[in-house]
Amino acid sequence: MMKPLRILISNDDGIFAPGIFSLAQSLREIGDVTVVAPDRQQSAVGHAITMHSPVRVHPFHVNGTMFGYAIDGTPADAVKFAVRNLMKDNPPDVLVSGINHGSNTAVNVIYSGTVSAATEGAILGIPSIAISLTTYDRPDFRYSAKFAQKLTKIVAEKGLPPGTLLNVNVPNVPEEEIQGVVVTRQGRSNWNDYYEKRLDPGKQEYYWLTGSLQVLDNDEDIDQIAINNKKVSITPIHYDLTNYSVLDTLKTWNLETLK
Amino acid sequence: MMKPLRILISNDDGIFAPGIFSLAQSLREIGDVTVVAPDRQQSAVGHAITMHSPVRVHPFHVNGTMFGYAIDGTPADAVKFAVRNLMKDNPPDVLVSGINHGSNTAVNVIYSGTVSAATEGAILGIPSIAISLTTYDRPDFRYSAKFAQKLTKIVAEKGLPPGTLLNVNVPNVPEEEIQGVVVTRQGRSNWNDYYEKRLDPGKQEYYWLTGSLQVLDNDEDIDQIAINNKKVSITPIHYDLTNYSVLDTLKTWNLETLK
Repeated sequence: MMKPLRILISNDDGIFAPGIFSLAQSLREIGDVTVVAPDRQQSAVGHAITMHSPVRVHPFHVNGTMFGYAIDGTPADAVKFAVRNLMKDNPPDVLVSGINHGSNTAVNVIYSGTVSAATEGAILGIPSIAISLTTYDRPDFRYSAKFAQKLTKIVAEKGLPPGTLLNVNVPNVPEEEIQGVVVTRQGRSNWNDYYEKRLDPGKQEYYWLTGSLQVLDNDEDIDQIAINNKKVSITPIHYDLTNYSVLDTLKTWNLETLK
Repeated sequence: MMKPLRILISNDDGIFAPGIFSLAQSLREIGDVTVVAPDRQQSAVGHAITMHSPVRVHPFHVNGTMFGYAIDGTPADAVKFAVRNLMKDNPPDVLVSGINHGSNTAVNVIYSGTVSAATEGAILGIPSIAISLTTYDRPDFRYSAKFAQKLTKIVAEKGLPPGTLLNVNVPNVPEEEIQGVVVTRQGRSNWNDYYEKRLDPGKQEYYWLTGSLQVLDNDEDIDQIAINNKKVSITPIHYDLTNYSVLDTLKTWNLETLK
């Protein structure tokens, strides 16, 4: 008898988010799903982890049925708690984080809680996928949930190289308009952003971040360009941040004489 | 007449931390220093950015003298605010984040607010350095502040490749015991960690993260090994997370047929 696929699901939009509900619904068709997610919105938290304060974990029910566990921590906390505590005797075969409501292409990857949950999965040795629907408007998660199911099966079967995870972005168009699937690189981009100055009712200054993303690459194998072309983008990413290409340059600086 | 070096300083331990005070004191000997830092401890926040709420910024004085600006945000917020708002007409020549009280080697880089501040600097096009003193005990920042001064001068003079920053770790030994300076790679490592279950006074469960770092590499050019050998470690890192080495493998998976 085949053992059922053990799937861990998390996200950064919180356990109440429609995206995680669609994802769980789809992945329950192919395996045993455990959901552990933050108990509230945790977007743009980066790879935060809660060390200086305790966390609490509570079962979360939908219509009287157990849906998963809510943690008052970050996406990385949720995944670490799931793997190290809840599932420690029987770890997941695969982790899927999402479906995020909003794009995680280009420099956004750095800030993304969705990606951070999957990164924590990879750090803990679990083949991991982050999946995002690239819209900030009204999302329709049906196609991305279906795509997540297909990709999860493949990743569970083939595994992923140690330390590598997949960052998937899905264009927000109906299934029949999807133009294909492409393996991509993280785009170079800038946020043209700044903090807008405002006055509160007591006439005190406060600031609010505002701005727009500017993509600096045009190649077809760039994550954001794939999305612009209505293709699903799959970027293999890792958390070894070493810039190997400049190691040799730096060695010519004779920094060892700095001591 | 030479224009003085414009230096931006931030950190994640907060503007009250002794490490940022030592750093500012040392760098004021070589240039015009602007300090913008979180108004409280922000360790292990990763590359978080405050988007869904406003931030406030207040001047911070030490003994009646203006020391810098405190922001009720993350390290990345502090740097973004400094570059995009405060210094927008006259950007810094170099950013230095630290001196962190604690190690930022190996997988810790992913969680580090100190590194995150310097990453934000690199994203904004500023040559950036993160510097950490690798102890959790009583720190002596004198040597690391002196080293930061020397390295800042070199980086200001030579610049850094776009998108690349330097992650510097300094061993916690007296200057005379320092064995050298070495250009390193980020080590592979695991945290053997889990959430310890406890009961609060009301007998409700809570969990607290605990564990220890296990380094999986032994080479001399690994960040943590350099520290073990009492050498200053300088790792060039970047925020392009693409794992280029697996792009070709992934292309053989025929993922384009998944559509």
